Amino acid sequence: MPNHLKTQLQSLLDNKTKPPGSLGRLENLALQMGVIQATTAPRASPAQLLLFAADHGVYAEGIAPYPQAVTAQMVLNICAGGAASSVLARQHGIALTVIDVGVCGDLPAQTTLVQAKVRAGSRNFALEAAMTPLELNAAMDAGRAAVQASDAAVILIGEMGIGNTTSAAALACVLLQDTPANLAGPGTGLDAAGVAHKAAVIERALHLHGYSPVSSQVDVSVDPLKLLGALGGLEIAAMAGAYLESARLAKVILVDGMIATAALACAAIIEPSVLDFCVFSHRSTEPAHSRLLTLLSATPLLDLQLRLGEGTGALCAYPLLQSACAILEQMASFASAGVSGASDSALPS
Amino acid sequence: MPNHLKTQLQSLLDNKTKPPGSLGRLENLALQMGVIQATTAPRASPAQLLLFAADHGVYAEGIAPYPQAVTAQMVLNICAGGAASSVLARQHGIALTVIDVGVCGDLPAQTTLVQAKVRAGSRNFALEAAMTPLELNAAMDAGRAAVQASDAAVILIGEMGIGNTTSAAALACVLLQDTPANLAGPGTGLDAAGVAHKAAVIERALHLHGYSPVSSQVDVSVDPLKLLGALGGLEIAAMAGAYLESARLAKVILVDGMIATAALACAAIIEPSVLDFCVFSHRSTEPAHSRLLTLLSATPLLDLQLRLGEGTGALCAYPLLQSACAILEQMASFASAGVSGASDSALPS
Repeated sequence: MPNHLKTQLQSLLDNKTKPPGSLGRLENLALQMGVIQATTAPRASPAQLLLFAADHGVYAEGIAPYPQAVTAQMVLNICAGGAASSVLARQHGIALTVIDVGVCGDLPAQTTLVQAKVRAGSRNFALEAAMTPLELNAAMDAGRAAVQASDAAVILIGEMGIGNTTSAAALACVLLQDTPANLAGPGTGLDAAGVAHKAAVIERALHLHGYSPVSSQVDVSVDPLKLLGALGGLEIAAMAGAYLESARLAKVILVDGMIATAALACAAIIEPSVLDFCVFSHRSTEPAHSRLLTLLSATPLLDLQLRLGEGTGALCAYPLLQSACAILEQMASFASAGVSGASDSALPS
Repeated sequence: MPNHLKTQLQSLLDNKTKPPGSLGRLENLALQMGVIQATTAPRASPAQLLLFAADHGVYAEGIAPYPQAVTAQMVLNICAGGAASSVLARQHGIALTVIDVGVCGDLPAQTTLVQAKVRAGSRNFALEAAMTPLELNAAMDAGRAAVQASDAAVILIGEMGIGNTTSAAALACVLLQDTPANLAGPGTGLDAAGVAHKAAVIERALHLHGYSPVSSQVDVSVDPLKLLGALGGLEIAAMAGAYLESARLAKVILVDGMIATAALACAAIIEPSVLDFCVFSHRSTEPAHSRLLTLLSATPLLDLQLRLGEGTGALCAYPLLQSACAILEQMASFASAGVSGASDSALPS
């Protein structure tokens, strides 16, 4: 059945008034979305950005140049419509919901804010596990619940959390079996000394949780729940839950940047087929991101030197999903438009 | 004054609620558009796709797998709303105007079709110059007139013409001082034998017009008008005129694929500053395109393996221009949103 559908979709695309394959990755996207939605008429709307927010205990180690209060301040800015994600979501007509799974401090109620706080920030993984198994479970469940509450056909999954590139880089070290020196990046704007300190903090945490020294082989037997609990963040765990639930409900998933991809890599160990539902939106400048994309055999749609998070890469890629669906839905076929197809007669004998 | 404006724009961008530079190329775009439009509030609308259509005398040499009648058929399909360019222009709210500067056959009147036919197809440049100087002038004037008739702030410039990758590849050979064997590509879908034949036709034409053998040095003294007249096409000449006029009127130019870039490279010899007004939308799979982009020191926004023409690459990139403007216009500043900026206090001493 999926193969029959694939053939049908390919045939529809090949009969559109254009040389076969000449719309490149837009055609691949149309095919993938049709297969995910089990239809020859895939749609890109409604779409929703689920933006998971949390603070990080490892912030205490001095791994970020912004005050921790910025997480809460940015959540309110996002809800008020002033953040990059708010602006881009509005541009594309995408509903934006922020899910607080672990922001420090009480946030006033907002119409686009879901209160699902598991804990006021994850624990400091340089000293102890970031989450207990119960906290991990609760965070993943909050991710699943956010997807269940959505009527969207396309789910964009983003994050906000000061300190979360440190958590994502630590996860990447284990997933890629490489060192913090190679994978820690500037995040929101650390200088070289700051990056070195961040790498040292991650190095210490890897030792503490039994993930160091790294082996020369990728450890395919890594336990994703243990890993997320040890080095993850509440919003990263929630994202993992959201990916799994989106795939289970056959939603098209638009994957954002480095933190989103680290969360996805964990989810894909739990359920590898989740990747079939994913469209990779962009390549960020954080060093671990390209490596994680390679691990997942993913070629993202955009490379715009973004490194903001908040789902902004996914938001920038979204119109391409609309284009893919529009081509399939609205383009004329050679027959319907009375356009001649390719013919050998024009070629030299 | 432009430097003062640049500083102002950069300062506005740096004060938006995001780490400085974290929106990557979107920030560069906002800056470029602001400088072009001489404002701190650049806009991406209204936008218009000017799609120049013409046939090519060199078609008689058997260099394309589609019947020549497809040019006229596709013009009508585009005007009727069924082509890829029609669908994508509609998606993005972009006005689409087709300018017939040389389609073979009479086209019935269409509301979105401008009749500016210089000649029913260019002459066969394997036998004689593609255009006389008068015809070249008329085609370039048609391009200029189309821009003058537009109220758009952003001009997308596209083309339709069976056989026009042969003309563009021939131009590229002279501009890049390289051989047809290296620069001729499959176009709408030639097989290896077809590409070899196309290269041989171009080789013959280069000899005829005094452009062969190629030297090992890029010939910076190439006369762009002589080149366009010898090996160009009526729609390619019109595009060159449209670029020049768009720059003169300080419009943002969104450059499409290989044929569009070959036309631009000719225009840029006439007036190098035209490049300051250009945003390069995408990298097509035609081999000459990447080489022409390098010649112009251009890094396009998208690489989606498109090879359709019709302005489709420019159309796909257009929402990024809207995003760039929206960020500048709508994002809150740190001060206005009450978000704390980066601070050394969070970093380890």
